[in-house]
Amino acid sequence: MVVKVYGPAFACPKRVLICLVEKEIEFETVPVDIIKGEHKDPEYLKLQPFGVVPVIQDGDYTLYESRAIIRYYAEKYKSQGTDLLGKTIEERGTVEQWLEVEAQNYHPPIYNLVLHVLFSDKMGFPADAKVIEESEKNLGKVLDIYEERLSKSKYLAGDFFSLADLSHIPFTNYLGAMGKMYLIKEREHVSAWWDDISSRPSWKKVLELYPAPILE
Amino acid sequence: MVVKVYGPAFACPKRVLICLVEKEIEFETVPVDIIKGEHKDPEYLKLQPFGVVPVIQDGDYTLYESRAIIRYYAEKYKSQGTDLLGKTIEERGTVEQWLEVEAQNYHPPIYNLVLHVLFSDKMGFPADAKVIEESEKNLGKVLDIYEERLSKSKYLAGDFFSLADLSHIPFTNYLGAMGKMYLIKEREHVSAWWDDISSRPSWKKVLELYPAPILE
Repeated sequence: MVVKVYGPAFACPKRVLICLVEKEIEFETVPVDIIKGEHKDPEYLKLQPFGVVPVIQDGDYTLYESRAIIRYYAEKYKSQGTDLLGKTIEERGTVEQWLEVEAQNYHPPIYNLVLHVLFSDKMGFPADAKVIEESEKNLGKVLDIYEERLSKSKYLAGDFFSLADLSHIPFTNYLGAMGKMYLIKEREHVSAWWDDISSRPSWKKVLELYPAPILE
Repeated sequence: MVVKVYGPAFACPKRVLICLVEKEIEFETVPVDIIKGEHKDPEYLKLQPFGVVPVIQDGDYTLYESRAIIRYYAEKYKSQGTDLLGKTIEERGTVEQWLEVEAQNYHPPIYNLVLHVLFSDKMGFPADAKVIEESEKNLGKVLDIYEERLSKSKYLAGDFFSLADLSHIPFTNYLGAMGKMYLIKEREHVSAWWDDISSRPSWKKVLELYPAPILE
């Protein structure tokens, strides 16, 4: 049974794709064109009632929310491919902490930056300069805390690459297309961390197979 | 060793407290007065660099982010007290899905409602009528999807009470103080679900021990 992943062009589904490659799990993808509004089609809403990507189908099992899906596969295939959860229950706790930091602190400002800088034209709404300015400022504050953390620890949750690091990759990659990669580069330890995690073969493979829509 | 929980008066730490009561884990609490800005004190920032509550200390182990903490204890004491993660890896996946829905879809609008309706005066910023209106509208849309889900399933992740339900309790409880509990009551299955989960002895105990600051 091959895992079916919906919406591979977009950043949240790419979290799932990196995870599946790291875990050596076979998958196929189903395009969902958000620019055309396909995520609001009645058939799609049966799978994902909130109308966002991704969703996966694995035999009879359907699951949505990218960070739930990556936890599921990281746990289900714990000993296959890269271990992404840590060795002990305490390490997993720390992975969970940084996954939540990504979701609660890092994602909101970078999502707003990407939306307003890269997607507003395509999606037909005006970019808000104030949102862009505040989001960049807030992202910078979060990255200052990351800099401190990563000066003491190679990866966010410790000395091992985990779901917490993985979860940052797709949206951080957009900083390049926005001309804002200096947010990463001007922080020594964040920069080394980014060079490391963005060089992983899993991410290179995902990016090659499914370029972001903005770059097409 | 007793678990030390910081900030028990507030809603996010209450997620942790409900979980500890459900899991029959001994704890003590350390007040953090957010109204007075104690969450930005240098000593507190050493524990939680983002300056929010909660954080826990459990011997040498420190952990923050409420949803990470509840996952940690639910897993560490899987067979003690209420099982909050489901019996199979697929059930846990579905618990994770609805925990993420709570964090990504439910929490942002209800948090903004609580902040602007109940806390703006105390925290010294003007309540924004547009934020209040949009948050209520967005929360209503999310609850429409919950209504559909809960018409087919007693709890969010299935026929068992889990972290996903638990995580909704503290902020939803504020709807009463805001005069907005009709958002729950006007939806038949959401209303029955809320009556069920808010009647749990764990929540009653937490509310009795640590009343919300707004009600003091």
